[in-house]
Amino acid sequence: MKGQGTGKEMAAPKLTRKKLEALLSTEFPEMFNSQSGYAIERVWHGGCRLRRHYHPKSLRPGGTVSGPIIMALADVAMYVALLSAIGWVPLAVTTNLTINFLRRPAPRDLLAEARLIKLGKRLAVGEIGIRSHGGDDLVAHATSTYSIPAAA
Amino acid sequence: MKGQGTGKEMAAPKLTRKKLEALLSTEFPEMFNSQSGYAIERVWHGGCRLRRHYHPKSLRPGGTVSGPIIMALADVAMYVALLSAIGWVPLAVTTNLTINFLRRPAPRDLLAEARLIKLGKRLAVGEIGIRSHGGDDLVAHATSTYSIPAAA
Amino acid sequence: MKGQGTGKEMAAPKLTRKKLEALLSTEFPEMFNSQSGYAIERVWHGGCRLRRHYHPKSLRPGGTVSGPIIMALADVAMYVALLSAIGWVPLAVTTNLTINFLRRPAPRDLLAEARLIKLGKRLAVGEIGIRSHGGDDLVAHATSTYSIPAAA
Amino acid sequence: MKGQGTGKEMAAPKLTRKKLEALLSTEFPEMFNSQSGYAIERVWHGGCRLRRHYHPKSLRPGGTVSGPIIMALADVAMYVALLSAIGWVPLAVTTNLTINFLRRPAPRDLLAEARLIKLGKRLAVGEIGIRSHGGDDLVAHATSTYSIPAAA
Repeated sequence: MKGQGTGKEMAAPKLTRKKLEALLSTEFPEMFNSQSGYAIERVWHGGCRLRRHYHPKSLRPGGTVSGPIIMALADVAMYVALLSAIGWVPLAVTTNLTINFLRRPAPRDLLAEARLIKLGKRLAVGEIGIRSHGGDDLVAHATSTYSIPAAA
Repeated sequence: MKGQGTGKEMAAPKLTRKKLEALLSTEFPEMFNSQSGYAIERVWHGGCRLRRHYHPKSLRPGGTVSGPIIMALADVAMYVALLSAIGWVPLAVTTNLTINFLRRPAPRDLLAEARLIKLGKRLAVGEIGIRSHGGDDLVAHATSTYSIPAAA
Repeated sequence: MKGQGTGKEMAAPKLTRKKLEALLSTEFPEMFNSQSGYAIERVWHGGCRLRRHYHPKSLRPGGTVSGPIIMALADVAMYVALLSAIGWVPLAVTTNLTINFLRRPAPRDLLAEARLIKLGKRLAVGEIGIRSHGGDDLVAHATSTYSIPAAA
Repeated sequence: MKGQGTGKEMAAPKLTRKKLEALLSTEFPEMFNSQSGYAIERVWHGGCRLRRHYHPKSLRPGGTVSGPIIMALADVAMYVALLSAIGWVPLAVTTNLTINFLRRPAPRDLLAEARLIKLGKRLAVGEIGIRSHGGDDLVAHATSTYSIPAAA
């Protein structure tokens, strides 16, 4: 949606890309490692672009990337967008995620772009658009809510 | 989300604003009349901006516009966006709607902006952002799926 | 879903049916009045059954009850279920609602059954099933989250 | 929700548990193998109970099972419930999934129970409840829509 303030999206994140990748690799070794294929391409205050490298073994019948792979990407992208705005709060947890699968993804890398549409004290809401590398159309679109622990 | 093609959004709708308002008033007299306060402000191929005029009696405790009013606005905006792309198919029906309420709306008109993020033969998916008149922040954000009848 | 504890569902609500109807009529005169056609049929701790009387003017093309009417019913049913468990906290607000429309409702009364599936200090989540009077199949199914103000 | 017809839930599935496990292992070797830890515990016409064995490496900070693991379980459970009712249609695809995370899962096996709440020609909708083994409370609750290809 327009009117979200491009200037605002470019504000500096609370954690740099490199710092985020290092922290995520340490805390989520299962999900964020050289095998999993996630890479933060850009991060700004309240948003990020996250890449998931293509693995032939993520395919499902029909030759397309499986739904759970796409859901995980959406969830992680929203998590990175949140941490970019509130700093390192690993205990923030997803309370709700809604995803619409729109088109079959190509057998290529996926790119998720997440941005917060609300950042409250207790809840943050974001939207995530996912495309195949090189494609304009959305493969999937998600919205997600995170609960921010009181201590944060 | 960016990359949706501004040029595309400006393509001519299959039904003009006036034609849509006339058809909706006839077919949905309960929802679309001079009392209900809906007005189509702009319509293009695959999207629209819909206004709902402020009624003091839509308020709920706390002085804010009630949730059902906002949900109805989101649903109608998506319906108009769909009709702008497929023409007059009144039997298209909502199959799913997810809404996040983000901020208390002000006691003012509401503006909904809807756009399709997928238009298939059987299903159309759109997203809807709702703001208070004069406000930049989203009051609510929804995604919605419509089923398009086979005859369409 | 089974295993929700029938015994628990039968626990006494914090507010009786009559008390709830009186409070709702006072605070939401626009939504809860003799015209709107809502009636609380049963209420227990964490759940309720809410009826919406049939109005011919709620129809949409195809002769079915309109989506916004059904969404409003789901939202109000969840609200009553929440108040039945936490007492009178009118400033509790919906943060998320997801609804699937499953079948065309008959031109008859609608019955919504709501029950909490989580009651936390800050958030409550419930599910709502909606049927036409006399019908077994679900017309719509919703899940909804309410935010409970800190003062509550 | 009650009234879904216990007798109906017990009707024979179109594919037996063993047949389903064999087909899923062949078609989704990445997701359904001895490592992934999925096991179909029961299947009936329109529903199933699916177990995901506990892996210490699925944990996230706070010692709880990660969200993507739970989302994948919900999606697969719904898929099995759908196949139990329509037979082997591997190209059926998720179009929408909404999940509410309700409580931190224990570091134990997860059990998902899925059932269809609508089975149309083109769309099927189901709900999925997820609990920790030995626990009564829902850890997560999801609803999901699958699109059934025309050939099916």
